[in-house]
Amino acid sequence: MTSKTSQGNFFEDFRIGQEIRHATPRTITSGDVALYNGLYGPRFAAQSSDEFARAMGYRAAPVDDLLVFHMVFGKTVPDVSLNAVANLGYAGGVFGVPVYPGDTVSTTSIVTGLKENSNGKTGVVYVNSTGRNQRGEMVIDYSRWVMVRKRDETRPAHDETVLPELAHGVAADALHVPVGLDLLSYDFDLAGAPHRWGDYQVGEKIDHVDGMTIEEAEHQMATRLYQNTARVHFDQVAAMQGRFGKRLIYGGHIISLARALSFNGLANGFRIAAINGGTHANPAFAGDTIFAWSEVLDKYEIAGRHDVGALRLRLVAVRDRQGNDFPLRDAEGKYDSAVLLDFDYTLLIPR
Amino acid sequence: MTSKTSQGNFFEDFRIGQEIRHATPRTITSGDVALYNGLYGPRFAAQSSDEFARAMGYRAAPVDDLLVFHMVFGKTVPDVSLNAVANLGYAGGVFGVPVYPGDTVSTTSIVTGLKENSNGKTGVVYVNSTGRNQRGEMVIDYSRWVMVRKRDETRPAHDETVLPELAHGVAADALHVPVGLDLLSYDFDLAGAPHRWGDYQVGEKIDHVDGMTIEEAEHQMATRLYQNTARVHFDQVAAMQGRFGKRLIYGGHIISLARALSFNGLANGFRIAAINGGTHANPAFAGDTIFAWSEVLDKYEIAGRHDVGALRLRLVAVRDRQGNDFPLRDAEGKYDSAVLLDFDYTLLIPR
Amino acid sequence: MTSKTSQGNFFEDFRIGQEIRHATPRTITSGDVALYNGLYGPRFAAQSSDEFARAMGYRAAPVDDLLVFHMVFGKTVPDVSLNAVANLGYAGGVFGVPVYPGDTVSTTSIVTGLKENSNGKTGVVYVNSTGRNQRGEMVIDYSRWVMVRKRDETRPAHDETVLPELAHGVAADALHVPVGLDLLSYDFDLAGAPHRWGDYQVGEKIDHVDGMTIEEAEHQMATRLYQNTARVHFDQVAAMQGRFGKRLIYGGHIISLARALSFNGLANGFRIAAINGGTHANPAFAGDTIFAWSEVLDKYEIAGRHDVGALRLRLVAVRDRQGNDFPLRDAEGKYDSAVLLDFDYTLLIPR
Repeated sequence: MTSKTSQGNFFEDFRIGQEIRHATPRTITSGDVALYNGLYGPRFAAQSSDEFARAMGYRAAPVDDLLVFHMVFGKTVPDVSLNAVANLGYAGGVFGVPVYPGDTVSTTSIVTGLKENSNGKTGVVYVNSTGRNQRGEMVIDYSRWVMVRKRDETRPAHDETVLPELAHGVAADALHVPVGLDLLSYDFDLAGAPHRWGDYQVGEKIDHVDGMTIEEAEHQMATRLYQNTARVHFDQVAAMQGRFGKRLIYGGHIISLARALSFNGLANGFRIAAINGGTHANPAFAGDTIFAWSEVLDKYEIAGRHDVGALRLRLVAVRDRQGNDFPLRDAEGKYDSAVLLDFDYTLLIPR
Repeated sequence: MTSKTSQGNFFEDFRIGQEIRHATPRTITSGDVALYNGLYGPRFAAQSSDEFARAMGYRAAPVDDLLVFHMVFGKTVPDVSLNAVANLGYAGGVFGVPVYPGDTVSTTSIVTGLKENSNGKTGVVYVNSTGRNQRGEMVIDYSRWVMVRKRDETRPAHDETVLPELAHGVAADALHVPVGLDLLSYDFDLAGAPHRWGDYQVGEKIDHVDGMTIEEAEHQMATRLYQNTARVHFDQVAAMQGRFGKRLIYGGHIISLARALSFNGLANGFRIAAINGGTHANPAFAGDTIFAWSEVLDKYEIAGRHDVGALRLRLVAVRDRQGNDFPLRDAEGKYDSAVLLDFDYTLLIPR
Repeated sequence: MTSKTSQGNFFEDFRIGQEIRHATPRTITSGDVALYNGLYGPRFAAQSSDEFARAMGYRAAPVDDLLVFHMVFGKTVPDVSLNAVANLGYAGGVFGVPVYPGDTVSTTSIVTGLKENSNGKTGVVYVNSTGRNQRGEMVIDYSRWVMVRKRDETRPAHDETVLPELAHGVAADALHVPVGLDLLSYDFDLAGAPHRWGDYQVGEKIDHVDGMTIEEAEHQMATRLYQNTARVHFDQVAAMQGRFGKRLIYGGHIISLARALSFNGLANGFRIAAINGGTHANPAFAGDTIFAWSEVLDKYEIAGRHDVGALRLRLVAVRDRQGNDFPLRDAEGKYDSAVLLDFDYTLLIPR
């Protein structure tokens, strides 16, 4: 046996303020974009067409925001969540400068909170993770917290509990509007729908109609593309010993499927500007058919801009049933068993 | 419920002469090409090698003609065939200027025919669709007709029937030979076979030998790559309520598989110049193994060219049996139950 | 029936000294790289990041060595092994100049050995295959031997047996170190582990911990991407008639999976410099879960270099069980039934 193999960090291994430079910087290419498109089928014009993107003031078609998120998230897994029991939540996610094919993204994290669980077996680790391009510019910055196993259950791991202050929703003035963006000649026909910022009302719900069934090969290819090494997604031998007997699907796969389905109703939401929060309400497995619905939670003006506004949205992914009655929680406030994802994010959309 | 979601057009929504600018212009990249290659395994040298393509007079390896077709076809689905019962046929398809990675293709359609069915439930919609690159040059132009559901079965939808004149086969002088093409130094060894235009005889049949089994993940990834939104391909929950209990495979997936298999026998057919017609004789499902055979229907000289000629071919895809006895129709003229595709197209090939 | 279809070469068709220019030169793109990453999930920094690669002296992120190998190997299949009964071994594989996205690789082979089997049904063909880029520079050169069916079992095929001299392991001075390589500022943090050449000991064994389950869609997409036409990988109808009743997985797919898994323990092995030998000990099928372990067989200094050394390694892939007890052979010297691959190769690694 050798010590050269990493078994990942346990709860005892984290320290408040610890900074982690994650391995494997990644150049994101048009090949990654193509595979992403084959896996989810998004149809947003800005990400599909260099010409359309240039007419909006982009340099070229930007990489889908969620592909950037998954690439960064994936890099944190070997250091942060290889021994995770559960991925508990996201907060305060902000997207910075757009990523274009050819850009190289590197990821660092800072440990911002530690809280041991009373059962002595696990603890919650809070990290703030940042992806930067080859010029050091921030492309995404977000917090997440995750329940991690202890190496030694017989003794306490940390002297004190530290809980970070987590933003409950990213404020409008913290949203990044890409430099040079100009939507005055935005082509709603080519984008696929006429609806502008002003057409959406707070409280409005949208059923995204279509369903998509997930295959094992699909979520495995996605998760490997992101260099996410969480073994629960890939190893059927280990899965047979586990609680479900099946490989678990990476939660981000469900986010991307739901976002792609949401085109039908939100075709002009051309950029995810923030991830305010998110919960993976139930695990997903191959064979599940994903439907999605959205609710407009809030609307923001963007200071100094008359051509673009922001919508804060709840995006809910549902399994094996349509979302046209907008299932979410039961009478006791528990998530409906069909709900897989309750995602709170902010979209930029033409005014 | 919201009105922001599109449910697609019904038969009543179409008007003769109506022009539709389809959503989502698409930049086709070398990533799309790679995924296409992984899905079908074509081996044509011109599309595989920039060097080989340049020696033929191309600027670089052109994008596979069928990938261009699928990208354009996919864009028409949300407007034309989301409520289709059946995809009835193709005619008069012409490929224009070659598409190279980095080109952006936009699609428009004109409604050229409408014919209500006597059962009052459906009607046939004829459209002519055109894909153009970022310079407005035609890359593909074809007609198709499709049976579309009515929104209201209780009353007639249109006052009169209009049937377009459809070309029965694209004439030799309507075929586009790429500008700059020069086959005098064409390398038959590297292309994989010695057979020239003169070696093929009208009536000759070719069994393409190999079989390929289709997986759900494969046809789903292909169809999403094309941004084709027809829900029958993706939604197992809906499929369980349907006639087959299974997800249907996009007909174009079968065309591409058969074309890739046809390399063995037609290795020098370096460019599809026309789609004369085509019928999806039976539906295909995951688990089917596809075989293919071809018949030379006609041979055309190309005016002013001694280095290139055209073959008009029937390409037949068969399911779960070899094509070496060339199955097509039974005694009553009905398609053999093993036949999935009867495709009539024209290839350019060195003389 | 036509003679235009190739049925592949039989044992009688090969001649000592025969040179074969294989069909389909191939431009390798960043799209191919992306699909490769999605299929296996490698995390080596040099191949993942243009920035990291440039800091090492590469022009950009080089294409994964095994992707180059598969592309070249695939081209030899239609001529060499379409009628193969078994792929018997590899030897003397050397990687030359790095391949970058956009390079076009062409393949030739020379027949170096022929040995008819005593049963009269098959013979062993030895070939030396070479891949070259568009400038004619060698990118890979290796020997393999394969058992090929005879066309006519009733009479001998060749007058004499010729056995080539095969290198048993590529010597240190035959390894190619990429021109311009400079590892003095190599970033071990970003690469994912601190272990240098000096940290590895001959005889050391490393369990790579993780397992990965293979799906049909995955190995089919991989093998088609390589334009490898061996029908046993794709045709379930034929497979049902065969010995296993299932599609066989291309042996190279297992090599790539094992190499990707080996990142955990060999993260700094940034380049495969040689393939000394290799045996596919048992066939692999969809549903198998692959684990891997390595053994350090030897260590080489590189003449004139203080920044880089070489490790000769055994890489073993195991099915449906972990590799942490390093299974290989039983008491009689036969491969353990769980062992799929015994691969002998040489890695470059920073000193």
